[in-house]
Amino acid sequence: MEKMKMITISREFGSGGRTIGHQVAEALGIPFYDKELVEHIALESGFASKFVEEHGEHSPGKSIFSYAFASQGVPGVMNGLSTADFLWSIQCNVIMQLAEKGPCVIVGRNADYILKDRPDCLHAFIYANKDYRAERIVRLYGESEKSPQARLNEKDKRRKVNYQHYTGRTWGQAQNYDISLDSSRLGIETCTDILVKLMRGEKI
Amino acid sequence: MEKMKMITISREFGSGGRTIGHQVAEALGIPFYDKELVEHIALESGFASKFVEEHGEHSPGKSIFSYAFASQGVPGVMNGLSTADFLWSIQCNVIMQLAEKGPCVIVGRNADYILKDRPDCLHAFIYANKDYRAERIVRLYGESEKSPQARLNEKDKRRKVNYQHYTGRTWGQAQNYDISLDSSRLGIETCTDILVKLMRGEKI
Repeated sequence: MEKMKMITISREFGSGGRTIGHQVAEALGIPFYDKELVEHIALESGFASKFVEEHGEHSPGKSIFSYAFASQGVPGVMNGLSTADFLWSIQCNVIMQLAEKGPCVIVGRNADYILKDRPDCLHAFIYANKDYRAERIVRLYGESEKSPQARLNEKDKRRKVNYQHYTGRTWGQAQNYDISLDSSRLGIETCTDILVKLMRGEKI
Repeated sequence: MEKMKMITISREFGSGGRTIGHQVAEALGIPFYDKELVEHIALESGFASKFVEEHGEHSPGKSIFSYAFASQGVPGVMNGLSTADFLWSIQCNVIMQLAEKGPCVIVGRNADYILKDRPDCLHAFIYANKDYRAERIVRLYGESEKSPQARLNEKDKRRKVNYQHYTGRTWGQAQNYDISLDSSRLGIETCTDILVKLMRGEKI
């Protein structure tokens, strides 16, 4: 495989996809976009970053909140789009601009779909079994009122619905990506090593 | 990741999954089961190998043929099962016995599901874009009355229906496997190299 310019990493919540993305960016010495991407989108859209972070990968349904924001948020700019659809259009623009700018790692935000036509972009999907993910989210993000299983189910469902709505594809279907890796079976380090070698176009 | 004892390779028709499986078996010096598996199943079931080959991964619907075979095939042994269900039960037994016997590569036959509870078994899925697969099947298996696209669609559909029926899972869903690789993007050699390293438990 030839050397790749950029990589998108889609991931199940708690699978370590973000950590892997960070390690790949470090190894290759290229920018890493995750929270940073949220800032870009917030800046472009005029919404608060906390709002973008919460709604950017979630279900596209119009809530009372989205109507409230739609009428107050950015008058005259949203052209009758729902808040979610408006954010999606901004998100597409930001991600395509980042891809033009230069090599990078982009985690989440349906970037695999947005950049699907770029041959210089590798698309990876990271997932893991539920026990592994439950242990990781409690260790990394702490306990909450809800059980770890409920938190996983909720996030999984939201990402699935959002992905389906904006891409027409099925979340987690292998054919959406160039490579899919189970981090609970292969280990986070091995996942990173495989992706770094592929990005460099080196022999495995 | 630890060293693995065996590997199942599920694959889209024309993706090169069989070739990759063969190369992995050669590199590791372990048996390769594909057509050979058909012979085993035929031997156990009393059906002709051509019949097993054609029906083993195909849709489970009861055709006139399957009723005809069911009444004539192996009297008193099939216990009222349809031919397809009878073959499936034989297939499960043969694959579980092979796994007990020693290290091996098993291509197809829903072996990923049958051996899903063995921690010493790596499960890989190989797929590729349709243009790549169409070119390969014409080159390797020759032209036929049907267009390459029609041949791909037919095989894809049959494997999908068979897999769904016997496993309750969705064909091609990344979470069914430990690793999924697009051979048209990564190249057959790279896919082989990744799987060999993982099987050996070597650092990538």
